[in-house]
Amino acid sequence: MMNITLPDGSVRQYEAGASAMDVAKSISEGLARNVLSAKVNGEVWDANRPIHEDSVVQLLTWNDKDGKQTFWHSSAHLLAEALEALYPNVKFGTGPAIESGFYYDIDTGDQSISAEDFKKIEQKMLELARQKNTFDRKDISKEDAIAFFKEKGDEYKLELIEKRGADESLTLYQQGNFVDLCKGPHLPDTSKIKAVKILKVGGAYWQGDDTRQQMTRVVGITFPKQKELTQYMHMLEEAKKRDHRKLGQELELFMFSEKVGQGLPIWLPKGTALRSRLEDFLKQEQLKRGYQPVITPHIGKKDLYVTSGHYEKYGEDSFQPINTPKDGEIFLLKPMNCPHHCEVYGNKPHSYKELPIRYAEFGTVYRYEQSGELHGLTRVRGFTQDDAHIFCTPDQVKDEFLNVLDLTMHVINKLGFEDFTAQISLRDPNNREKYIGSDENWDKAERAIIEATKEVGLTTTMELGEAAFYGPKLDFMVKDALGRSWQLGTIQVDYNLPERFELEYIGSDNKTHRPVMIHRAPFGSMERFIGVLTEHCAGKFPLWLAPEQYIILPISEKFHAYAEEVKLKLAANDIRGTIDERGEKIGKKIRDAQVNKMPFMLVIGEREMSEGKIAVRQSGQGDEGAGDMGAMTVDDFIAHFKTLL
Amino acid sequence: MMNITLPDGSVRQYEAGASAMDVAKSISEGLARNVLSAKVNGEVWDANRPIHEDSVVQLLTWNDKDGKQTFWHSSAHLLAEALEALYPNVKFGTGPAIESGFYYDIDTGDQSISAEDFKKIEQKMLELARQKNTFDRKDISKEDAIAFFKEKGDEYKLELIEKRGADESLTLYQQGNFVDLCKGPHLPDTSKIKAVKILKVGGAYWQGDDTRQQMTRVVGITFPKQKELTQYMHMLEEAKKRDHRKLGQELELFMFSEKVGQGLPIWLPKGTALRSRLEDFLKQEQLKRGYQPVITPHIGKKDLYVTSGHYEKYGEDSFQPINTPKDGEIFLLKPMNCPHHCEVYGNKPHSYKELPIRYAEFGTVYRYEQSGELHGLTRVRGFTQDDAHIFCTPDQVKDEFLNVLDLTMHVINKLGFEDFTAQISLRDPNNREKYIGSDENWDKAERAIIEATKEVGLTTTMELGEAAFYGPKLDFMVKDALGRSWQLGTIQVDYNLPERFELEYIGSDNKTHRPVMIHRAPFGSMERFIGVLTEHCAGKFPLWLAPEQYIILPISEKFHAYAEEVKLKLAANDIRGTIDERGEKIGKKIRDAQVNKMPFMLVIGEREMSEGKIAVRQSGQGDEGAGDMGAMTVDDFIAHFKTLL
Repeated sequence: MMNITLPDGSVRQYEAGASAMDVAKSISEGLARNVLSAKVNGEVWDANRPIHEDSVVQLLTWNDKDGKQTFWHSSAHLLAEALEALYPNVKFGTGPAIESGFYYDIDTGDQSISAEDFKKIEQKMLELARQKNTFDRKDISKEDAIAFFKEKGDEYKLELIEKRGADESLTLYQQGNFVDLCKGPHLPDTSKIKAVKILKVGGAYWQGDDTRQQMTRVVGITFPKQKELTQYMHMLEEAKKRDHRKLGQELELFMFSEKVGQGLPIWLPKGTALRSRLEDFLKQEQLKRGYQPVITPHIGKKDLYVTSGHYEKYGEDSFQPINTPKDGEIFLLKPMNCPHHCEVYGNKPHSYKELPIRYAEFGTVYRYEQSGELHGLTRVRGFTQDDAHIFCTPDQVKDEFLNVLDLTMHVINKLGFEDFTAQISLRDPNNREKYIGSDENWDKAERAIIEATKEVGLTTTMELGEAAFYGPKLDFMVKDALGRSWQLGTIQVDYNLPERFELEYIGSDNKTHRPVMIHRAPFGSMERFIGVLTEHCAGKFPLWLAPEQYIILPISEKFHAYAEEVKLKLAANDIRGTIDERGEKIGKKIRDAQVNKMPFMLVIGEREMSEGKIAVRQSGQGDEGAGDMGAMTVDDFIAHFKTLL
Repeated sequence: MMNITLPDGSVRQYEAGASAMDVAKSISEGLARNVLSAKVNGEVWDANRPIHEDSVVQLLTWNDKDGKQTFWHSSAHLLAEALEALYPNVKFGTGPAIESGFYYDIDTGDQSISAEDFKKIEQKMLELARQKNTFDRKDISKEDAIAFFKEKGDEYKLELIEKRGADESLTLYQQGNFVDLCKGPHLPDTSKIKAVKILKVGGAYWQGDDTRQQMTRVVGITFPKQKELTQYMHMLEEAKKRDHRKLGQELELFMFSEKVGQGLPIWLPKGTALRSRLEDFLKQEQLKRGYQPVITPHIGKKDLYVTSGHYEKYGEDSFQPINTPKDGEIFLLKPMNCPHHCEVYGNKPHSYKELPIRYAEFGTVYRYEQSGELHGLTRVRGFTQDDAHIFCTPDQVKDEFLNVLDLTMHVINKLGFEDFTAQISLRDPNNREKYIGSDENWDKAERAIIEATKEVGLTTTMELGEAAFYGPKLDFMVKDALGRSWQLGTIQVDYNLPERFELEYIGSDNKTHRPVMIHRAPFGSMERFIGVLTEHCAGKFPLWLAPEQYIILPISEKFHAYAEEVKLKLAANDIRGTIDERGEKIGKKIRDAQVNKMPFMLVIGEREMSEGKIAVRQSGQGDEGAGDMGAMTVDDFIAHFKTLL
């Protein structure tokens, strides 16, 4: 008999050789039907794989990230089986699960696959899935594996096998007629896959090396229910409409220029207005919470980064150093603000009475990303962190976390996000020697973080062993209106930089102490955050943030003077907008205003002017149309407007 | 006979061979006594040098910059004569006039000169000056010059002579016993020099080359009247007290760090608060005048600067290019914002109806300055320009100049500067082919600038031939409280960049046209401007701009709660400050607040608290002490405060 410990801590006994599926069945048949794979002692296994010793077992279903990954990895095999059936002599590269779905890179020889073939592939996959074939695992020697794939003629698999050690034991998985070199794990059988969509076909170099064979990458996604696929396709459609790259161009928020460089956003007037308003709002909230803004240069000497330790990590994949006319003088484009802020702290002696000191900077930093990884505002080469560094005593860590959490939750909320969680990364309790800083301080800081998140009611997950060597941290995640998760910023405790920069304060005991440093950028970067916000609100920004809050649409030139009068009155009430003075028809003006996501359209014609009124149309949220609110006085409109802020 | 034309246009006739001094004497003996040298056909000459043909002559006195330069250059010769008398065998390098005064670099062999010797040197100079020796000019061949200085043993002069062409005719000047290799011009005689001050002695490498001999540099200044020297020494004393590097440290406005790099200011919290307030004020004023803020990256690809033409000028004395992992991809640290703004303009088509478009950015740029040239905030390697680029039609140039002048004069005035002038740089009318842009547009723009400055009543000087090849410009100058002139920013018309970036707009004729571009940065840079402002107001910033407007000084801890109450009430009225809660005596708190240039000190003791009042001390301007305003209610203080904004 062996002991199986479940996540809730309960222990059950089974015959040696029982599988996770046996465990599931012993609990409930319903549960067993939903099991996709299982985490056995931290490793994801086939649900049917026999367990031979006492183990910790977590059953994985569609609700678990790892469960989904098993589902999609098995779907990649199913795709391969279908492709082999449809395209004789196709050769297989690799076929992993990805964040959403899976792909297989294949060499189709002289055949080609296009969008017109998707239906056929989907149908073949569903047909094979219904056969309820199991995924059978088989250990095999390297020699036998070579023989097998040589016979099959799969040269790419052979190349992968050649790289493995001579004594390494390999595994094959077979479902139906398809056999693949694979570590697994896989689903109990193919019938779990009930809905299939091939999303696209494209090119990809073998092993990501542009000197090698160009493969055909077939990308797809599968679900356990048809309804989930329908929802997913709807979400994709909606995400396309909300793509911040598309909206950013339509709303004239930002641009890119080939000459300035890829991944370097340029903020156009409307985007600058929006971003500045957001920064001002954050600045005000930070001032209220005791932050002190500073401004530091965008470059720093090599010395600075040697001291901070970043220089060692500076590699060939980074922006390269900047030389100067002076021999040996080298500057680096600033990849983060912390070393500069350490220099500010170290500029004069500090007493414990001054702590915590919170230096804040909307600091623009530059990091070289591969061009293939760049994506609109969410993956860039230059971005502005909503950065701050807090220098405090070990006893102040908890209050500082509370302060940062309060700020972040207040602000995130003000921006219309409701689903907000965090991951806490703690040290590996079995491996304490690899961390810098005293045991006492780590315990204090970890406890402080956990308690602070509980006190503010923030939902968190905890990951042991995920902390950096220099301190525990907390990562923020938001879910947007389409249910997609976005990683935002971080609060990171740091015992390392204060040591490296020899930062000190005089304690109440009149002795010198090292402060604790806390890095925090709740949004991560203004660029990324505004990208996410744009998709979340589909370009209909919260009224207080919108670059323009209204547009006046005069029916003809005759009403321009009155429109000007209305505009002045609104401006006097801090309501910002413009007049559409073009000679276009009113219908066209309204349509254009809708494309521009204008919160309010104020139409002015003969009747409105003679009655001293404006005809107000309020833009709807989501898919709703614009709401006609009828004619009202400017004062009534102002009163209504103010209730919405 | 020859015709001599004077600056007022009048023409007088003299015998050929008459000198400028003869001209002066023919006008008045008083004038002749004041003549130091003369500009003859644009070149500065000895006043006594014979003129042989029809010429334009301008007599130069102490009131002319060139007159002062002659005075100080002659003083350098007088210094050399004194040094030769006092230090046998001293060898001479070069001895030019500088902006204020003059120096001579000498090799003293095994003798040394220290501050204790200054008196002796000054007395010797005055003694020699009283001899009323003339400065006698003598043409000499290179060969004879070599023979002369070889005999004298002046190896440095020999090196200078060796560099001259074989046929070049050289000149010597002699006063008293001292003979120097010199092009002149010089004073009529030494007796004009009535007041002498040796300011400092230091080291300087021969020819500025750090591999050559270290010379002794003796720096001095002279005046035609003792009173002027006294005033100058007082000004120096005052300037030292006001040195923004010293005040910046005392007031904790900014710092430099060896690790971050020389010439890269880091703004501390109080400096950041001040700078941000100034930027916000400018931003508001610019918004009112129709500017649109944009934000662009701090780097740009080489392509951008090849297009703009700046790349050609990018040399070994600049920050060097930034390479990336991608072969041939090169970025440059942005030395100016204009190419980026051209890309913004070029991002979409424009109609004449949209013009003028005014893109504004507080853009931080980086330029490598030699380390010896760096000076506090006024000469740096990284600075933030209050930059904007206006794209307009040729007909809009004048209105745009009026708009910029209005903004600049309004803002400069609000900052307490009263003496404000400008230099207009026009094209050389005799050399029109070297300029880009049509004759018509140049005429229009030059007329527009001149008319605009007249309309706003700005005092200007005009310099023909000083315009850049791509357009005329206007430079702003302010005089500070010590009477020193500071060059601030510029308005520059540009016909070149719109051409290079192929910028266009559709005119009312439905055809494409090139816009005119205007660069403008009225302050030049935030760093430089704040440096100048700090010295102008001696650290006592205008009340609206001061980082802290008051400090509450409780006499003991007992009054902290009441102090907190007062602070909240002031904060609610947008009056910012802090409480000095240290356990120091009140006298010490007051002295510290004075050092910190605190505009108001609010003292709270038993009596103030019981009566619900505060004892107000207002800081004086300039050398005045703090004024005791007695006890008053917080409301009365707020009312008084608001009258001062």
